[in-house]
Amino acid sequence: MAYQGKKLVNDPNDVVTEFIEGLVETYPGLQYLDGFPQIKVVLRADVLSATYDKVAVISGGGGGHEPAQAGFVGPGMLTAAICGDVFTSPPVDSILAGIRAVTGPKGCLLIVTNYTGDRLNFGLAAEQAKAEGYKVEMVVVGDDCALPPPRGIAGRRGLAGTILVHKVAGAAADAGLHLADVAAEAKHASEMVGTMGVALSVCTLPGQVTSDRLGPGLMELGLGIHGEPGAAVVDLQPVDVVVSHVLKQILSAETQYVPITRGSRVVLMINGLGATPVMELMIAAGKAVPQLQLEHGLAIDRVYTGSFMTSLDMAGFSISIMKADPAILARLDAPTRAPCWPVGVEGDRPPTKIPVPVPASNASSKKESIVSEPRKLNELGCILQVAIEAAAQEIINLTEKLNEWDSKVGDGDCGSTMYRGATTILEDIKCYPLNDAAETVNEIGASLRRVMGGTSGILYDIFCKAAYASLKQNQVISSRQWATALEASVAAVSKYGGAVAGYRTMLDALIPASEVLRERLDAGDDPLKALLLSSEAAVTGAESTKNMRALAGRSSYIAPDLLSSVPDPGAMAAATWYRAVAQAVESKFHPSKN
Amino acid sequence: MAYQGKKLVNDPNDVVTEFIEGLVETYPGLQYLDGFPQIKVVLRADVLSATYDKVAVISGGGGGHEPAQAGFVGPGMLTAAICGDVFTSPPVDSILAGIRAVTGPKGCLLIVTNYTGDRLNFGLAAEQAKAEGYKVEMVVVGDDCALPPPRGIAGRRGLAGTILVHKVAGAAADAGLHLADVAAEAKHASEMVGTMGVALSVCTLPGQVTSDRLGPGLMELGLGIHGEPGAAVVDLQPVDVVVSHVLKQILSAETQYVPITRGSRVVLMINGLGATPVMELMIAAGKAVPQLQLEHGLAIDRVYTGSFMTSLDMAGFSISIMKADPAILARLDAPTRAPCWPVGVEGDRPPTKIPVPVPASNASSKKESIVSEPRKLNELGCILQVAIEAAAQEIINLTEKLNEWDSKVGDGDCGSTMYRGATTILEDIKCYPLNDAAETVNEIGASLRRVMGGTSGILYDIFCKAAYASLKQNQVISSRQWATALEASVAAVSKYGGAVAGYRTMLDALIPASEVLRERLDAGDDPLKALLLSSEAAVTGAESTKNMRALAGRSSYIAPDLLSSVPDPGAMAAATWYRAVAQAVESKFHPSKN
Repeated sequence: MAYQGKKLVNDPNDVVTEFIEGLVETYPGLQYLDGFPQIKVVLRADVLSATYDKVAVISGGGGGHEPAQAGFVGPGMLTAAICGDVFTSPPVDSILAGIRAVTGPKGCLLIVTNYTGDRLNFGLAAEQAKAEGYKVEMVVVGDDCALPPPRGIAGRRGLAGTILVHKVAGAAADAGLHLADVAAEAKHASEMVGTMGVALSVCTLPGQVTSDRLGPGLMELGLGIHGEPGAAVVDLQPVDVVVSHVLKQILSAETQYVPITRGSRVVLMINGLGATPVMELMIAAGKAVPQLQLEHGLAIDRVYTGSFMTSLDMAGFSISIMKADPAILARLDAPTRAPCWPVGVEGDRPPTKIPVPVPASNASSKKESIVSEPRKLNELGCILQVAIEAAAQEIINLTEKLNEWDSKVGDGDCGSTMYRGATTILEDIKCYPLNDAAETVNEIGASLRRVMGGTSGILYDIFCKAAYASLKQNQVISSRQWATALEASVAAVSKYGGAVAGYRTMLDALIPASEVLRERLDAGDDPLKALLLSSEAAVTGAESTKNMRALAGRSSYIAPDLLSSVPDPGAMAAATWYRAVAQAVESKFHPSKN
Repeated sequence: MAYQGKKLVNDPNDVVTEFIEGLVETYPGLQYLDGFPQIKVVLRADVLSATYDKVAVISGGGGGHEPAQAGFVGPGMLTAAICGDVFTSPPVDSILAGIRAVTGPKGCLLIVTNYTGDRLNFGLAAEQAKAEGYKVEMVVVGDDCALPPPRGIAGRRGLAGTILVHKVAGAAADAGLHLADVAAEAKHASEMVGTMGVALSVCTLPGQVTSDRLGPGLMELGLGIHGEPGAAVVDLQPVDVVVSHVLKQILSAETQYVPITRGSRVVLMINGLGATPVMELMIAAGKAVPQLQLEHGLAIDRVYTGSFMTSLDMAGFSISIMKADPAILARLDAPTRAPCWPVGVEGDRPPTKIPVPVPASNASSKKESIVSEPRKLNELGCILQVAIEAAAQEIINLTEKLNEWDSKVGDGDCGSTMYRGATTILEDIKCYPLNDAAETVNEIGASLRRVMGGTSGILYDIFCKAAYASLKQNQVISSRQWATALEASVAAVSKYGGAVAGYRTMLDALIPASEVLRERLDAGDDPLKALLLSSEAAVTGAESTKNMRALAGRSSYIAPDLLSSVPDPGAMAAATWYRAVAQAVESKFHPSKN
């Protein structure tokens, strides 16, 4: 099915010009020659031909391959890039203007991809520049390994391996070498690299209809960067298989595209063709490395993964393999400020990647010793036991009611979820270190998260974890320290959950509870009385949610009029267990009152 | 139309794990924690928690946003990144493992995007880590400007602006600041940035069917990075208009998403969503800058263009604008080795980009003086005139024959193309500086390229340019120097055109001519005799192409049996004008023989 390709562009005729404008806005070290739109030359902003004391390295070619070549202009790589229209070689006058703009007494090297148009236009410009007195050398790169070994000059197209040649030449020039030596290094590098591409889609020229050559479930092997048909259209395969096929083709002993044999050291480039996410490129890189090592017996010195030489919006990638020696590695590793050369890739690698062991928790040894302690409850332990059991029981009693409210304002499972937590606590409590309040609260959180899951499980675990961190700072826990722990819990739930008072959440029960508890203790109330009063505040707060608009959780998608008269079930649950705790503690100290 | 999305992956469940494997293969400075596949943590290979003397900066979140966050791990930016499955928050245990692996005595800052899952899982891990004795702070980033100002905690999703927050925090930590100060800088940065996205396609989860929400010709404004529907689906517009709309939304004075007003200094980020070519991103950057300057009255200090936080294979981009002050700029500019932070963007920009003037040719002034000389031909000039006119006339005579041959082996226009060249030379010759052989040859090349166009025009210009460069080194031109010039011409055509002897091209006439000329001169022959003999070699060579397979040009696509008995028209044309030159020179010196 052919269809109009979608692109975020303006006039399709202006895409290269507008690309260059954006490029120089992004990178202050780049500049462009006047003469738009005919002359499209990107050059280093810091180079003046009159004073440039190094060999200039110049490349270029048709547009549509961005960031190639203009993105590789910078100290240590290209001195200038000459841009043509999409898939069209730049005209001689542009190339000449670029040469004149950056070439000093040491001359310039032109690095040209092996397409007739590029060879001829750059060639003519080279001859013209020579006639004007410039020293000029030209190296043609043809790294394609997709087609059968070439008859004549067709085939061996210039592909992404060209970028590696740029880097070698740019570093050699930056090191101060003479033109002949820079050209020799570039030529040597160009003979060491082979490339092959695979695509899931055909690229769309701006303003054009997309070709329907590749249907669903198909991919194309060995295609060119101008959308020219590939060597074969085959069924889409797992990337493992694709990588294996491409590597075998590049390294074929029959065709001898590259002088790489078992035991060679190589660098690997995984190059996205324009619309391939970095995730897929990295997956290919991760698969290519062990295949090269184990199946082809090669040592991988560097891996370059990214979108370097693209084909408009084509989905797919190419793989390049370059035979490496210490001299080439030194050039590839040399510093550059070219914006699109990958960072953090240089330097020798560990022989294999050794995964770092997962660090153990600081607390784990301590925890084990707690669990193995003989169980004999002290006074605090007894109070905790009673309070926890009462809270769990009240939640169990409230299950139906919670589900009923939640079916009106949420997804109807609040009661069931809380029930799971409560029953699990009643089971797990025999393992809780009840004589240690902090650790017990921590364990409750773990129980709840394990069985409740989702947002509520994690919020209750956060609630408990914050209380635990607060409580564990004390040897003996006073009522004020419990109040502090409750404040820490409320703050953590608010911070990580993102809700505050009035959002129609469990905080609408717990915030009033926490505030009243602190208030009454500060006023000098008896701690038990303060706790009971705060639990009444929790219930009042929970019931007040009937009149609130939902601002968090699933209820926020429910129309306000449906919410009125129904309290927030999360808030009601919180108030319920909190009141149960208060009443249980009260009855433990004043059994007469019950 | 829904369809199975095409991806270059293996098992869709393993994409994040395999991404990480490729990432650490690519970047030797990165490492991962053991515990795959449950625990997916990328960390700096050079940081050990026991000895790390800076605040650790940790981020993370669901996968599918690569390179975020793992690609931003490196000195000066993140210390570790915690990866979840695609669009799924990482579990608490992974986050804890990451915290423990890199957090030293100065503590750690968690930078979390504002999604419930991320907030809660990171929040719980933070509380747990605190309970274990670590110093932990957390900053939540919600930079989304697409939805109406938030009611409650929904809305204000964390988008690409988060990457700028990472950089600010990472640089602050790298500068040795304490945790509270690093957290304060991160929080401040998060409040200064606003982001909005636009997409042409919906992303495809690995192994899933692609949503058909966006049909042809449509785009979506204000969508999220998990493929959630956007604020509006509208007709596809030129990117100018799209950028304008997005900027207005982010900077809206009504919503006040970001505290940016006329006169503010800002940084701009254009972020690709996964499948957007860098060409389109740069075009958007190039359009956003002047709009921000002229329509919104802002000064743009930095532009970051690339794919930083993606949404699988979504086509589109987001724009982020951050209010900048000298402190933020210093953090953004600080060096980092994080592989995916853009290079070459830092440093103050020139107030406007001033295009560099196109350099003039060295030769142009000289040329003018030649043209203005009074026309009075010397002996050489007379010979050149006769030779050129004879050559052109013979080509004109051969037009029909050339077209006939070419219609069998090419596209049938060789004669017409050569005719255009020949007739133009007969017109232009009155302006040629005939007393200067080098300049005349150069002008012939220019005439031919201008009117012949295509490959043949440029090849003849290369031929002439090379001869010009060779000839102009001499004050008086001997026959040997003409032979040298012919050799240079043949070499240049071979080099740039890519053909050699036997490829069935014009070189099959010119190479024998050049060789015989040199040979006879070396043997001491009379120059005129040598020239005549060499012209016979040219004709013989051209006729021998009948028996050659085509290895260059259009004929290389023609079956060999169709080629036999037809000579290469380009070779025949070359032999024809060359013989005409030889005969004309001969008759000029020995008129008796005619």
